Amino acid sequence: MRDVAVIGVGMQKWGELWAKSTRDIFVESALLAMDDAGVDTLGAMYVGSMAPGLFADQEHLGSVMADYLGQKLIPSTRVESACASGGLAFRLACMDVASGMHDVVLAGGVEKMTDIGGGDATHALASAADMKWEAVHGVTFPGLYAMMAVAHMAKYGTTREQLAHVAVKNHYNGSMNSRAQFPMKITVEGVINSVKVADPLNILDCSPITDGAAAAIVVPADMVKDFKKAGVKVIGTGHATDTIALHDREDLTTLAAVSASAEQAYKMSGKGPRDLDFVEVHDCFTIAEIIVSESLGLFERGKGGPAAEAGDTGLEGRTPINPSGGLKSKGHPVGATGVAQIVEITEQLRGEAGKRQIKNARVALAQNMGGSGGSSVVHILEVM
Amino acid sequence: MRDVAVIGVGMQKWGELWAKSTRDIFVESALLAMDDAGVDTLGAMYVGSMAPGLFADQEHLGSVMADYLGQKLIPSTRVESACASGGLAFRLACMDVASGMHDVVLAGGVEKMTDIGGGDATHALASAADMKWEAVHGVTFPGLYAMMAVAHMAKYGTTREQLAHVAVKNHYNGSMNSRAQFPMKITVEGVINSVKVADPLNILDCSPITDGAAAAIVVPADMVKDFKKAGVKVIGTGHATDTIALHDREDLTTLAAVSASAEQAYKMSGKGPRDLDFVEVHDCFTIAEIIVSESLGLFERGKGGPAAEAGDTGLEGRTPINPSGGLKSKGHPVGATGVAQIVEITEQLRGEAGKRQIKNARVALAQNMGGSGGSSVVHILEVM
Repeated sequence: MRDVAVIGVGMQKWGELWAKSTRDIFVESALLAMDDAGVDTLGAMYVGSMAPGLFADQEHLGSVMADYLGQKLIPSTRVESACASGGLAFRLACMDVASGMHDVVLAGGVEKMTDIGGGDATHALASAADMKWEAVHGVTFPGLYAMMAVAHMAKYGTTREQLAHVAVKNHYNGSMNSRAQFPMKITVEGVINSVKVADPLNILDCSPITDGAAAAIVVPADMVKDFKKAGVKVIGTGHATDTIALHDREDLTTLAAVSASAEQAYKMSGKGPRDLDFVEVHDCFTIAEIIVSESLGLFERGKGGPAAEAGDTGLEGRTPINPSGGLKSKGHPVGATGVAQIVEITEQLRGEAGKRQIKNARVALAQNMGGSGGSSVVHILEVM
Repeated sequence: MRDVAVIGVGMQKWGELWAKSTRDIFVESALLAMDDAGVDTLGAMYVGSMAPGLFADQEHLGSVMADYLGQKLIPSTRVESACASGGLAFRLACMDVASGMHDVVLAGGVEKMTDIGGGDATHALASAADMKWEAVHGVTFPGLYAMMAVAHMAKYGTTREQLAHVAVKNHYNGSMNSRAQFPMKITVEGVINSVKVADPLNILDCSPITDGAAAAIVVPADMVKDFKKAGVKVIGTGHATDTIALHDREDLTTLAAVSASAEQAYKMSGKGPRDLDFVEVHDCFTIAEIIVSESLGLFERGKGGPAAEAGDTGLEGRTPINPSGGLKSKGHPVGATGVAQIVEITEQLRGEAGKRQIKNARVALAQNMGGSGGSSVVHILEVM
């Protein structure tokens, strides 16, 4: 297999983009990435999107997006792994280039979630859980992650305040990200007093419903010198699935798919948790960031909450988590999130992250998750 | 890249499978394929499905199917390209093995279409067309293909009878396929006198709505000797997209994505149309088989209709098309169709096709299409 690198990234401001359609926002991000890389034509495309049929009545996004991007007759593939669809699109783009199939491949993610009502959006999102044994009985994602939070609190003594610290830190980071949907700073007290969604999770523990897209251009590493900007090498990839239903897991306080996907990426890259200068992880809920940080091996089990409270995961901490603002502040257009993580890592490793720049960052990890951990995709990137 | 081969295939009888869920029918076919190959564990999986969210309220099929198949923590990816989702799943499985990522990979396709009403099924299928500029105005697939038929008739003199001959031949072939949904023989007169759907297409020009799945096991070609049954080598793959909307095409009487995907596969394999002992193509409507046969280069433009009428595409003809019975007789569970083509080709090239066996078949092509030709996937396989 050939080594691969990211040579361009693009992403617009996320939020409630009423005036734009799914195809508009995808093309907007894709053109930003192509412009960043300085390429006009693509060899292939991978489009990550979770449920464009349920959200926007449109499937067949591989064809739609290649068409609207003016890429005539190229192979363009839509992939889906619920909220990990973007990470998976990036993985397949890397595999495509690594295999020698194509040289210049776009990985994009998109979701337009606000065109349908909140109830319908909750229904669409619930299709990422086990519809037969979970969602049909009324359990939705806040409920599933709340159960994980309760179990983690009971087993390790994780506190309500520790959960809040995750949200406060991510909003602080997001306040320096001009593309974030909710770039306002919040307080621990504000999180704790916000509206209850599913005990112990309040509204400010939850990532929002968002319209947005993100894109990255992947090329063979030995072609990077032909481009105008610095490339970032993809040194590890991992992908794993777990039981779709939470009740089939042996342990609610850890995420086996996250650990398995991370182990694959660690092995491929020769790096471990201590080598990471920062990470972007899937904080769909505050408890998710804590459990993921443990399942990635950044902290011992049960120590994720105390680490968040102590500031170890802040921009100046031992292992910064979600300098972008994460899903919590940046927004969570489900199919786009995994690619947006690659956008943040690329910009950080190029030293383009402005006020939220991590100093001397050389190696970083992205972790993108589907459902309640039914799937996880991990990538490790390094400066070239 | 490594050479790859199919070492096992599986498929149950298709039809209206009321007593089974999407996951049931996928697992059933997957287990048949794993048994055929003699494998218990998979390195990775690719699941082709067009719209399980719209048809069955369930996305995240990569996780669901790996879970229900008992394949713990493996990477399992759902891919979608409308009715070409199955072909694309097979292509990605081949790319995965070719790249060296995994050794034993399952490509499966599934769609459970009958759990919702006919109107809702038509709506779900319409999401493969351009929802913004076609479907929202009431144009559905019979209408789109009818426009292609009218254009082909006007330009080349293709007749109503020639269209009917495609359906008659496919039902004749399907009458020898125990897994076909509609294995009854029909007549040219019967097709012409059947209920009108969208002029000039009648109900017997249209493929049906079907529940079903299909699966294939892909391994490195040099591992085939370790398995109990004969392998079939994958010697070419191609994938292309075209405009999502029919009105953006330069010519309604040909399918550019089909030609482009076939050219890729011909080039990779070193084979051409004359080297093919038979083909399985995407006859979602009778006109589709005629246009595809021309776009693949099997017949000159405008000669597809006369060839069908003359019997050139029958089991004993110059280039047999759809010995399986095609989508028309076998059924068309949209995400499964592309993998079912691989099942038929594998069984034919192994000499396991019973009464519909093509004598001395050594090289065959599968062509799977999304929408009105918005995407096309082609594979060429050869006996080892």
